[in-house]
Amino acid sequence: MTAGAAGAGRIVPPGGVVGVLGGGQLGRMLALAAARLGLRAAVYAAPGDAPAAEVAGWFVSGAPDYLEGMADFAARCDVVTFEFENVPAAALAAAGAHAPLRPGPRSLEICQDRLSEKLFVEALGFDVAPYAPVDGIADLVAALDAFGGGGILKTRRLGYDGRGQVRIAPDLPDREAAAAAAWTAIGGAPAILEAVAPFLRELSVVAARGADGELRAYDATETEHESGVLRRSLTPGAIAPETAARAAEIARAIATGLEHVGVLAVEMFELPEGRLLVNEIAPRVHNSGHWTQNACAVDQFEQHMRAVCGWPLGDPARHSDAVMRNLLGDEAEAWRALAETPGLALHLYGKAEARPGRKMGHVTMLAPRCD
Amino acid sequence: MTAGAAGAGRIVPPGGVVGVLGGGQLGRMLALAAARLGLRAAVYAAPGDAPAAEVAGWFVSGAPDYLEGMADFAARCDVVTFEFENVPAAALAAAGAHAPLRPGPRSLEICQDRLSEKLFVEALGFDVAPYAPVDGIADLVAALDAFGGGGILKTRRLGYDGRGQVRIAPDLPDREAAAAAAWTAIGGAPAILEAVAPFLRELSVVAARGADGELRAYDATETEHESGVLRRSLTPGAIAPETAARAAEIARAIATGLEHVGVLAVEMFELPEGRLLVNEIAPRVHNSGHWTQNACAVDQFEQHMRAVCGWPLGDPARHSDAVMRNLLGDEAEAWRALAETPGLALHLYGKAEARPGRKMGHVTMLAPRCD
Repeated sequence: MTAGAAGAGRIVPPGGVVGVLGGGQLGRMLALAAARLGLRAAVYAAPGDAPAAEVAGWFVSGAPDYLEGMADFAARCDVVTFEFENVPAAALAAAGAHAPLRPGPRSLEICQDRLSEKLFVEALGFDVAPYAPVDGIADLVAALDAFGGGGILKTRRLGYDGRGQVRIAPDLPDREAAAAAAWTAIGGAPAILEAVAPFLRELSVVAARGADGELRAYDATETEHESGVLRRSLTPGAIAPETAARAAEIARAIATGLEHVGVLAVEMFELPEGRLLVNEIAPRVHNSGHWTQNACAVDQFEQHMRAVCGWPLGDPARHSDAVMRNLLGDEAEAWRALAETPGLALHLYGKAEARPGRKMGHVTMLAPRCD
Repeated sequence: MTAGAAGAGRIVPPGGVVGVLGGGQLGRMLALAAARLGLRAAVYAAPGDAPAAEVAGWFVSGAPDYLEGMADFAARCDVVTFEFENVPAAALAAAGAHAPLRPGPRSLEICQDRLSEKLFVEALGFDVAPYAPVDGIADLVAALDAFGGGGILKTRRLGYDGRGQVRIAPDLPDREAAAAAAWTAIGGAPAILEAVAPFLRELSVVAARGADGELRAYDATETEHESGVLRRSLTPGAIAPETAARAAEIARAIATGLEHVGVLAVEMFELPEGRLLVNEIAPRVHNSGHWTQNACAVDQFEQHMRAVCGWPLGDPARHSDAVMRNLLGDEAEAWRALAETPGLALHLYGKAEARPGRKMGHVTMLAPRCD
């Protein structure tokens, strides 16, 4: 039995140390939430611009695959969590040998691989967009034929924010050449081809599962993407209450099925006839849950901290409607104008370099609940 | 011209360094607010349990009167502010020579001395409870005679949370002996005697003034004290809208009169006939403004950061009603039960030692606006 398993029921009280793997904005907001609860956040981040390190009680700068550093870090923590699911399995094992890892290995194993994720969702009885595994150009051509010529080729591993994805149009003159080009574009890695879902809208549910199995879901949010990156989320947006209820049910069932401890986000497509397809599971706090910071008494970051520390989960009720918009690249330079907008909450991540498309901050506009 | 004066119009952009003098819970929440705006918070704190240090980008541990340390600290900051008005004047001057000090010396000079504060309030045309300066036992006996035998003896300097105060009952058999005992109890320091105001309720307004003179006031909150320490605040409580409007006007006028830059709190008594007496001014973020963290898009801590950094002030509108309650001493040990209360936001300060009466955290219960 590892220390991780032995610590499965561990409660980390105020004053305890929560280790966060990853130093980006999600880690930063997790660390800030920990501080609000009187917890001490520690951050393990790759060398470089690490916005989370600035607000952590202490941090370790190390590569994600530096196993000794990871083990030493975990040994100084009461529980270890992560902001990003693509932590190498060996590193997670190194950390998990020294402190409880929450969420646990099952959430990561399933969600690190698009194929295992889809099989898991289907096994729970939920729908996904048609897909086919692709391990070479021949597979891809066959899958394109089956899907009417088009689809989205996605690497099974290490994709996020539209990375590791290529969209293949259905009407290309030379399907074999298109397949070869797409295969090269994603680096020739194990992949899946997904049919393009003819969705009415995209939505996301952020839910939490506590160490004792307790479930709480935030209200579903309507999401809008650009180039594979979340642009805005609207809560409640145009989502019908019964659709929102079904979406929450799916998210809760997924959290239970994963034996997840912590927050996760389930991104879905709503089809014109109302059916929901599960698109992606992020086994962590998620951009589509940022609106909870300003529209709920307990936000997703605090909820995650509560879950991984074995605390009771917080009330996810929404007191206001909210529109969240990401600030990408140089958009954050408009901070003065944003700061003076009535009803607008401004969040900046303290990143030094505003590369094009980089998430530099977000704004959330509150409005009284319309329902 | 000092660097402080030269920097009067300085704007500190995201990425800039805000120095906070003081390492307690107010400094901690200021540092967290700075982080949300992409600012870097630095903390100068006395050695010992410093909850703010844990969340600061960097901190200096030094006594408040270690002038070289203070100067060196300020030289590494773009602006310097404080969580506590009782910073020695020499230390403030040392810091102010190296970075703009916001709020400026005028706010501190006036608010560090109860007598000058009352004279200032009266000069603005607002009312205070009857008072008399007391520099010895004879003064005190004379003042007690004038006030019908009772009153509250308060040191002019260094009082907060009921410290440096003694209440003298009006019906004591030996007035001279009572005066001598009270004088000894406050350490024989320059003081004032205040008549006990026959108030209906106590209320507080937290307001902000920007570097450009812009004014924003949060809604008035009804406050309840125990042993001189804030126990609960209710927003809007039982305060009539017209009373709240007058209270906000008083707070705004005081902020302007002080040429204040940053947040301040004005504590007032509401008399049965509706008249408002100004009780105390705190030239800083204040416990009676904690409710804004969960009931407003921009809270008092962020508002203070915006003001001292020369940013536009945020919208102080309240989206929810709120009841804030302090967790004193061992009350924070009930964190699990508090954490599972629906609609309740829990804030813990990360203090190591729960001495009786010590502010260890607070909770804010939200409810839909009743107006």
